[in-house]
Amino acid sequence: MKNISTDVLIIGGGPGGLLAGITTAQYWPGKKITMVRMEKNALVPCGIPYIFGTLGGLEKDMLPGTEQLHAMGIKLIIGRVTAIKPQERVAILDNGDHISYERLVLSTGSEPFVPPIPGRNLEGVFTIHKNYSYQNKLFREIIPGMKKLVIIGGGFIGVEFAEEIEKRGVEVHIVEKMDHLLATVFDREIYLPVEEYLADRNIHIHCRSSVETILPADDPTKVGGVQLMGGEIIGADAVLIAIGVRPRKELAQEAGLRLGRRGAVLVDGFQRTLDYLNIFSVGDCAQKQDFFTRREGGALLASQAAAEGRIAGMNMYSLQLLRQNGGSVAVYAGMVGDLAFGAAGMTATQARQAGFSILVGEARSLDHYPPAMPGSHEVYCRLVFTRESMRLLGGQILGGATTGELANEIGFLIQNRVTAAEIAGFQTCMHPRLTASAHPITEATGSALQQHLHTRATFH
Amino acid sequence: MKNISTDVLIIGGGPGGLLAGITTAQYWPGKKITMVRMEKNALVPCGIPYIFGTLGGLEKDMLPGTEQLHAMGIKLIIGRVTAIKPQERVAILDNGDHISYERLVLSTGSEPFVPPIPGRNLEGVFTIHKNYSYQNKLFREIIPGMKKLVIIGGGFIGVEFAEEIEKRGVEVHIVEKMDHLLATVFDREIYLPVEEYLADRNIHIHCRSSVETILPADDPTKVGGVQLMGGEIIGADAVLIAIGVRPRKELAQEAGLRLGRRGAVLVDGFQRTLDYLNIFSVGDCAQKQDFFTRREGGALLASQAAAEGRIAGMNMYSLQLLRQNGGSVAVYAGMVGDLAFGAAGMTATQARQAGFSILVGEARSLDHYPPAMPGSHEVYCRLVFTRESMRLLGGQILGGATTGELANEIGFLIQNRVTAAEIAGFQTCMHPRLTASAHPITEATGSALQQHLHTRATFH
Repeated sequence: MKNISTDVLIIGGGPGGLLAGITTAQYWPGKKITMVRMEKNALVPCGIPYIFGTLGGLEKDMLPGTEQLHAMGIKLIIGRVTAIKPQERVAILDNGDHISYERLVLSTGSEPFVPPIPGRNLEGVFTIHKNYSYQNKLFREIIPGMKKLVIIGGGFIGVEFAEEIEKRGVEVHIVEKMDHLLATVFDREIYLPVEEYLADRNIHIHCRSSVETILPADDPTKVGGVQLMGGEIIGADAVLIAIGVRPRKELAQEAGLRLGRRGAVLVDGFQRTLDYLNIFSVGDCAQKQDFFTRREGGALLASQAAAEGRIAGMNMYSLQLLRQNGGSVAVYAGMVGDLAFGAAGMTATQARQAGFSILVGEARSLDHYPPAMPGSHEVYCRLVFTRESMRLLGGQILGGATTGELANEIGFLIQNRVTAAEIAGFQTCMHPRLTASAHPITEATGSALQQHLHTRATFH
Repeated sequence: MKNISTDVLIIGGGPGGLLAGITTAQYWPGKKITMVRMEKNALVPCGIPYIFGTLGGLEKDMLPGTEQLHAMGIKLIIGRVTAIKPQERVAILDNGDHISYERLVLSTGSEPFVPPIPGRNLEGVFTIHKNYSYQNKLFREIIPGMKKLVIIGGGFIGVEFAEEIEKRGVEVHIVEKMDHLLATVFDREIYLPVEEYLADRNIHIHCRSSVETILPADDPTKVGGVQLMGGEIIGADAVLIAIGVRPRKELAQEAGLRLGRRGAVLVDGFQRTLDYLNIFSVGDCAQKQDFFTRREGGALLASQAAAEGRIAGMNMYSLQLLRQNGGSVAVYAGMVGDLAFGAAGMTATQARQAGFSILVGEARSLDHYPPAMPGSHEVYCRLVFTRESMRLLGGQILGGATTGELANEIGFLIQNRVTAAEIAGFQTCMHPRLTASAHPITEATGSALQQHLHTRATFH
């Protein structure tokens, strides 16, 4: 047993921990920073579906951060923290070593949620882990022989994994308990075309359904299929469970930190835990608040974790009031084939559920012009505004290569708290090979402003 | 001679006039709107270089707006306004008709500036006009036999035209009087790679030079070449003059409206002329102010004209304080081959010239991740901040397909008057096929914040 001393201790090496470490090193030179993570190698989580199709395998440069950590003088310990003692400011490692700290960052992340479905432990049932060795085993042992896959959960991971694995000639089924795929993130104008695309690729979609039992094969240790609610049986030699993740809460819970309903650590706008000003938490294990309502909400995203890591790092030793977490806006993007979909903020459905009275503006265009310009892709833009104050609540894009950055534009506008009238007056660029001839966000805003006008008795 | 009466009269059918008409129709239902333009057909101006290469010709759907005007009940008159009488609220057409109006929008646009170079009237010397019949003649009569072209002016039009025309096997020379191509819009980190690309395509670049004389061919009515400052002669059978445009000021000038130094109509933040509250001016013929300094400045862009047209339309019959022109941000994008370049706001050079003390943040990444993801393109992001307050002054992007929307993101952030600290805390999306693994704008902001920190004696 050794006694190790550090100024800043970061537990976990995902995007949140990584950015907390890097940002702390940038803002607080001279502070000794130590990161403890369980694996020598780490994965970019959102790249995982592509290992199995487009990329054709795991490669060294999917392992981010390690070199950057070394370059910035951050000490890396491969190991597991088994306990933290907030009063003594000490963390204990699985090898018995004690690490004393001034500041602690809990970025323990999340793990796939596996519901108690009978058969979930059969060989061939798997989840999407950020763990390198798990994915490596999956890629080398399970995927090559796969002929028929059932995916439980029709969210981003389920949809993108389905498309990638179908490219290998595997018959793919998606089972989703909601009425539609991606229905928590998009309105029907977006998810219907995505479902159509998947159906055209011969991906079988089973909505308003769930897997009641995972069935064994002739070899009773292996998966042979699933039985759906209602009795239907789908034969399968593999089952992917992708219905979401849960925060890794054990360390925080045992240390007596207050947790939210789903087990995430409660934090303030600077990512400090509510219990200790010197303990921060960032990423999937930290509680999220919705940007608009400040209620529990928001999405567990690598990009969100990175933003939180930067905020923690900047505020590590003194608060910078400008640099705080304003709440989760949930900026997303996904893609199947050449059809991309992105979103930021609330969908119309979510906004109504949260209690907003709304107006929706829409625009359809091409992402190049004139229409004969090669490589043009249709873009659909859908913006949600509050009905009276016309504040931007959210937006969705269905389009091509620019979809991710269009979602980021909507995200920036939301985070700047703009109104429709402001957007309508904003300048944008136009270029035949790079943009639409009229900006989709400006156009959709115009359509919302027109409705706003026409719902009023008089305009003057 | 007829007497025609309208509520809103729009002179000119380019992007500014078009959006003024459409927006007025949307916001002020019941008002009679009339547009007078000179040509039956109009062109999307920024699509013009592509007529001669990628698109292989003019096509009907490059003529925007006419159908939309009809659909919105806007009356279109093909003709020329020869005079306006602000006191009588009347415009006079070339056929003698009088049009009386309540509100007038001057959107007469601009025309290519042709300096008094000897030989400028030779056959084979041309400019880039938005005029359909002129471009059509150019495309059908001049381009097909062209073997050697000299382009005078190394701005956006010169550069993009050079690349398109070179695809037809024409030997192309660009003559630019500044030290580099595109040097008024970009810093060297952007324009050097663009110059390299053009040189690799065998486009001949002559900087710090100018054309003294355009020389005749054996047939003395036709172009045979140019003589540069210093005496060098370049043989050529065509010369494109692309050194900028000048506002079409005659109508406004003769009506006694006040003009700026370069002949543009002086307007307020709602695009109303300083002389008459019921006369608006938008687009290339309207004076621009720089967003930051409020001095004369800004660029003549179709997208800027469109934004001004919308602002005029929204404020046509009563002012909406939120909807005004905050000054020109100049959001641009261009592309040669697969190398795109975009900008918004000030370059470092422009900011220093305007009197700002600045910091520059930079980031380099790929627009997909991990690096093996197919179709990845390098992205360079360069952001300019005020040194003390760290307000965003401008940004430049060198990249691939997402460059235009990244420039729009920078444009939105500038127009929202954000500081580096705010950007650093903003959430963005990440997706392997759609974005970089760390957002270029966030990363470049981080690099600027770090410098800001290190230029201070203490941080606490």
